[in-house]
Amino acid sequence: MLNLREFEAAAASTVDRVHYDYLAGGAWDEVTLRDNEAAFGRLRLLPRVLRGRDKPELDVSLFGCHAASPVLMSPTAFHRLVHPEGERATARAAAATGTIMVASMAATVAIADIAAAAREAAGGVVGGVVGGGDPALWFQLYIQPDLEVTEALVARATAAGARALVVTVDSPVFGAHERDRRNGFLDLPAGMACENMRGLPGGEPDAVRPIAMSPEICWDHLDWLRQATSLPVVLKGILHPEDARLALRHGVDGLMLSNHGGRQLDTVPATIDLLPEIVAAVGGRMPVILDGGVRRGTDVVKALALGASAVGIGRPVLWGLAADGERGVRRVLELLREEVDAALALCGAGSPRDLTPDLVRRRS
Amino acid sequence: MLNLREFEAAAASTVDRVHYDYLAGGAWDEVTLRDNEAAFGRLRLLPRVLRGRDKPELDVSLFGCHAASPVLMSPTAFHRLVHPEGERATARAAAATGTIMVASMAATVAIADIAAAAREAAGGVVGGVVGGGDPALWFQLYIQPDLEVTEALVARATAAGARALVVTVDSPVFGAHERDRRNGFLDLPAGMACENMRGLPGGEPDAVRPIAMSPEICWDHLDWLRQATSLPVVLKGILHPEDARLALRHGVDGLMLSNHGGRQLDTVPATIDLLPEIVAAVGGRMPVILDGGVRRGTDVVKALALGASAVGIGRPVLWGLAADGERGVRRVLELLREEVDAALALCGAGSPRDLTPDLVRRRS
Amino acid sequence: MLNLREFEAAAASTVDRVHYDYLAGGAWDEVTLRDNEAAFGRLRLLPRVLRGRDKPELDVSLFGCHAASPVLMSPTAFHRLVHPEGERATARAAAATGTIMVASMAATVAIADIAAAAREAAGGVVGGVVGGGDPALWFQLYIQPDLEVTEALVARATAAGARALVVTVDSPVFGAHERDRRNGFLDLPAGMACENMRGLPGGEPDAVRPIAMSPEICWDHLDWLRQATSLPVVLKGILHPEDARLALRHGVDGLMLSNHGGRQLDTVPATIDLLPEIVAAVGGRMPVILDGGVRRGTDVVKALALGASAVGIGRPVLWGLAADGERGVRRVLELLREEVDAALALCGAGSPRDLTPDLVRRRS
Amino acid sequence: MLNLREFEAAAASTVDRVHYDYLAGGAWDEVTLRDNEAAFGRLRLLPRVLRGRDKPELDVSLFGCHAASPVLMSPTAFHRLVHPEGERATARAAAATGTIMVASMAATVAIADIAAAAREAAGGVVGGVVGGGDPALWFQLYIQPDLEVTEALVARATAAGARALVVTVDSPVFGAHERDRRNGFLDLPAGMACENMRGLPGGEPDAVRPIAMSPEICWDHLDWLRQATSLPVVLKGILHPEDARLALRHGVDGLMLSNHGGRQLDTVPATIDLLPEIVAAVGGRMPVILDGGVRRGTDVVKALALGASAVGIGRPVLWGLAADGERGVRRVLELLREEVDAALALCGAGSPRDLTPDLVRRRS
Repeated sequence: MLNLREFEAAAASTVDRVHYDYLAGGAWDEVTLRDNEAAFGRLRLLPRVLRGRDKPELDVSLFGCHAASPVLMSPTAFHRLVHPEGERATARAAAATGTIMVASMAATVAIADIAAAAREAAGGVVGGVVGGGDPALWFQLYIQPDLEVTEALVARATAAGARALVVTVDSPVFGAHERDRRNGFLDLPAGMACENMRGLPGGEPDAVRPIAMSPEICWDHLDWLRQATSLPVVLKGILHPEDARLALRHGVDGLMLSNHGGRQLDTVPATIDLLPEIVAAVGGRMPVILDGGVRRGTDVVKALALGASAVGIGRPVLWGLAADGERGVRRVLELLREEVDAALALCGAGSPRDLTPDLVRRRS
Repeated sequence: MLNLREFEAAAASTVDRVHYDYLAGGAWDEVTLRDNEAAFGRLRLLPRVLRGRDKPELDVSLFGCHAASPVLMSPTAFHRLVHPEGERATARAAAATGTIMVASMAATVAIADIAAAAREAAGGVVGGVVGGGDPALWFQLYIQPDLEVTEALVARATAAGARALVVTVDSPVFGAHERDRRNGFLDLPAGMACENMRGLPGGEPDAVRPIAMSPEICWDHLDWLRQATSLPVVLKGILHPEDARLALRHGVDGLMLSNHGGRQLDTVPATIDLLPEIVAAVGGRMPVILDGGVRRGTDVVKALALGASAVGIGRPVLWGLAADGERGVRRVLELLREEVDAALALCGAGSPRDLTPDLVRRRS
Repeated sequence: MLNLREFEAAAASTVDRVHYDYLAGGAWDEVTLRDNEAAFGRLRLLPRVLRGRDKPELDVSLFGCHAASPVLMSPTAFHRLVHPEGERATARAAAATGTIMVASMAATVAIADIAAAAREAAGGVVGGVVGGGDPALWFQLYIQPDLEVTEALVARATAAGARALVVTVDSPVFGAHERDRRNGFLDLPAGMACENMRGLPGGEPDAVRPIAMSPEICWDHLDWLRQATSLPVVLKGILHPEDARLALRHGVDGLMLSNHGGRQLDTVPATIDLLPEIVAAVGGRMPVILDGGVRRGTDVVKALALGASAVGIGRPVLWGLAADGERGVRRVLELLREEVDAALALCGAGSPRDLTPDLVRRRS
Repeated sequence: MLNLREFEAAAASTVDRVHYDYLAGGAWDEVTLRDNEAAFGRLRLLPRVLRGRDKPELDVSLFGCHAASPVLMSPTAFHRLVHPEGERATARAAAATGTIMVASMAATVAIADIAAAAREAAGGVVGGVVGGGDPALWFQLYIQPDLEVTEALVARATAAGARALVVTVDSPVFGAHERDRRNGFLDLPAGMACENMRGLPGGEPDAVRPIAMSPEICWDHLDWLRQATSLPVVLKGILHPEDARLALRHGVDGLMLSNHGGRQLDTVPATIDLLPEIVAAVGGRMPVILDGGVRRGTDVVKALALGASAVGIGRPVLWGLAADGERGVRRVLELLREEVDAALALCGAGSPRDLTPDLVRRRS
């Protein structure tokens, strides 16, 4: 397969339709789902020439976590739906390629097991350093109204070696996925569960607690979390610049500019369209990571040029996993890396740091 | 059925084609008909996060009339075309769900009978109050050049308990519906009539008077009506901001920003595109209710954020009625309410009052 | 048939394909041909309400020529291609409906015979006045480099009673019609000719001289014409505002804002998109008549609101002629008149004079 | 065939699919490939009238090189893929029509042989002058990191009579052509080679050296080239206005505003959209030649009006060559010339010098 879209096409024909629809679909009319990709198509790149750069360097450092590429794995749920190894395979692919993986709270493999798989794949080499410590693994968290439960989740992630918490804040209620309603997809198949939710305080030892999404979660919870952990806290799902400014004031460490892949509130803007404003609101005081619709190396370059510190991909990882397990995920990551590499070179850039906003234009 | 569009699709295949075309169609090339829906698709919502709101409260109060939802039933004609119970069923669904119904002067059930059905369904509970008085029923009026006839219509509506008059002002002549001309749809089937027009002054006791649309109706008629009734007077069909300002000067109580569902002058703007200007012209001095193309909870939220006090739906009510009578209409209202509920929560809003214009963006 | 587009569809299936292509087609890629119609679709009308107008009055007066409608017949060639009566039938339909007809220099009936047919149809009633003089017939002229020939043409038109000269200035060379090249359509069928070009000075008595299109024609020729005739001179084909200002300085009486139906230079703007600028350049000092893409009453109203004194239709006249001769043309004119009538009423206008530019908006 | 697009359609059905895809395709998603043509479609021409011009004069003079037309042949590789005569046939067509040909470094015929073919076809008449010296042949160059090799290439081109060097600067790496990857097109068929690369310094006498594309090429190389040759140096592939200003400072003689036909970095802007900015950056201090998407005479006129000194066509030359060898290429050149001729006349222009930016408008 030659590009990420071909992986998606393959998944559409091989993955169980009900599961494919769950993963590929979005909320209500899927306006945002489509717009995420379309918005990149409305931007143009204006390359520089004759800059005499070496082969581009792609490594980045985020919250003290070194990675070989500015493309990370956004959190996605239920990897075992498309491959029996599930998140283990994904984690091995991430570790092997030096990619930051944001493990989902809704993973079908527990964070400790994901971390173990990552360590094993890295063979002790982390961030290019033998014995370089914990793998580049972050943990995505929905703050649970029961703070004892939340605390236990954070403790597990910390114990597993997660190096940042990505707190999703766009889910006061669960988005309405009409494909799933039509397909009657309500539960994971037998034998799969959200393993991070197993055996939490206040339940039976082996019970899997449902993930609560609650409109009552507010900045106070964030302040509580901020003092309850020493891990960097990244907010995922802020779209309004005013909320980006609030995040700064509440001591947040970074933003993940995401519309949840078009799965929560439909008709929100494409993330790439919001990026300049969010970057301006943040004013360089914390990193902004963008996800949503990234399918090409040129998409990555556009986001970086407009001020993102890194970008995430979500669904393409799953299409790679569905195609060929760990190897499929690696192929997805490598293909995109090759494209970023070429796109940077063609822009006359020796690294993401050479990219500036004047290289991006809106299509006329 | 999962959403309002599915009700429309169902109606397209079950309702008699000639009647479906009458209800679904618009004037001339149906540019405005299509644009009403498309215009919402050009707007984006920018949600707020971490606001810690309770489950949203949707109730509104309009002209002293309390309703459980900011979505009301816009006036639509001829409900008996799609269901034998006609407006009786619609009224019962409205009353049962606490929805304001604007009964059409061109109803196939008389306003008194509509009101009776509403009262019966409410079981004496109106506006959440036992014995709470008249149901949330308004009457849509075309001012007739014969003022004695108009007076009789107003008297009937008042006697039936209508709590506001919605005066349609966009119909100096009847819009050209080419679908109907093609289909030869000129008259109601035998056994149906505009029951509000029966037995009016100047005619035989049981005769049904045709509804007159006349270009001679002007602000003087409005001034006359204003003093002839103590009911709130809402003008439906003003699109030019200058006319909104004139409405204020003539003591009107509210505006219904509507282009008659694209059935009168074709190529007028989508109502949602005009809303900011009309809201600015009115300057908060009277409520503005918008209809035209509302099919999703996100549409409702966009209109409310841009300053509408409520929104109306027209055709979807008929598709619900066609599908399953009173129950179908209730289902339509409930589906939309669920969507509004979810969309508000996802915007971080605890009620329509939390919505502000900065939450709406034009697609870039 | 319910509207002008249905006449076009009918012609597409009944008229000889080669001839249909000649009439319906445009230059090169037909960008302008399509854009003429599409541009009206990008405009929106903002009606006024409650203005208490009478049924609209549509009559206009142009260059002392009274007409019952602001819609006139733009010059089109070769009417006998679609009907044996050719321009005679068209002229009768024009006269019977009080419509100004601009007879083409490339007519297949001589101007004198066109005028005779018009007079006969009018039954001596012209401009609503019995014995009201010459019919509302204008003559379209390509200035010929041989001025003696041009003078003879003007003399013939004047003798026939033409009341204005419409000088086409967009044709220094003949537009490239690829449909015709593909079809091999090079000549009129046997028995048809440009009758106005027969027996002109410098040729055999009965010879038909080809119409010359020459890049050498310039403002000097216009100045010469201006003094060679006392008829009003209207320039057809000016698109650049600077040329509109030059026209004023050269004593021209009016402009016909036309892109030759997209048949000359392809990719010129739609005329309705240029209208505001041309109207501004002219500053009310002479009338501007627009043609190009007018198919609906709302198109007419948009052009009039933006400052046109009248609008022309071209191809629809031919589709009416093809469908049913004189009666077909009358039907086309009547349909459009009914639409203009309704559109004016729905805009709250009692006549074209009530239309103002604020009634027109660009689609958002 | 009536126009350039018909030549393309013919080539699509007659040329070997793998080779057609190589020639017709672009990089990654081919966004820029499509946009090059689409961008012309978004521009409108505003002609002038009554200017009394003679038949247009099309000849231009560029870097002391006289040509009969402002349309030149942009460099394209591998002409023998579509015709056994390859670049010899192309060169004869160019010479016979007085067209500047930019021979590609990746030609399948050596520059000396191309020049010989051109001289033979011109019959000693060059630039309209018998014995007028060298044909209007330029040489396209990728600066090779091995400067000795580059020097040898320049020497060969100079010896062959090339009258300018067109240095491509948009290729630090080779663009990703997914069509070719899919088709497995990696090498020229047996018996074809990049003949200019044969027998260069540092290799076997008859060996063909691969063309190196290197990100290390920078302005220093340009400065070196500038002093190593007395030929005019034209940079091809600058898109950023800042680089245009740098080119001026480095003593470059002209720019070829090109995005490599959408074959290098995908999603760069259409060249015609960048032209005004590049022209402004250059401020008349050197000529700007545009290529990319030119398919119609109106495209040529738009580019000239916006400030290009000439325009180039690439693929259409190959489609002509595929259709009928030298004659096919001549036909392509003649067709486009006829269109430019007509378009100029219809704009009221007697030569490209009469075209001004006010004649071009963006579609509204």
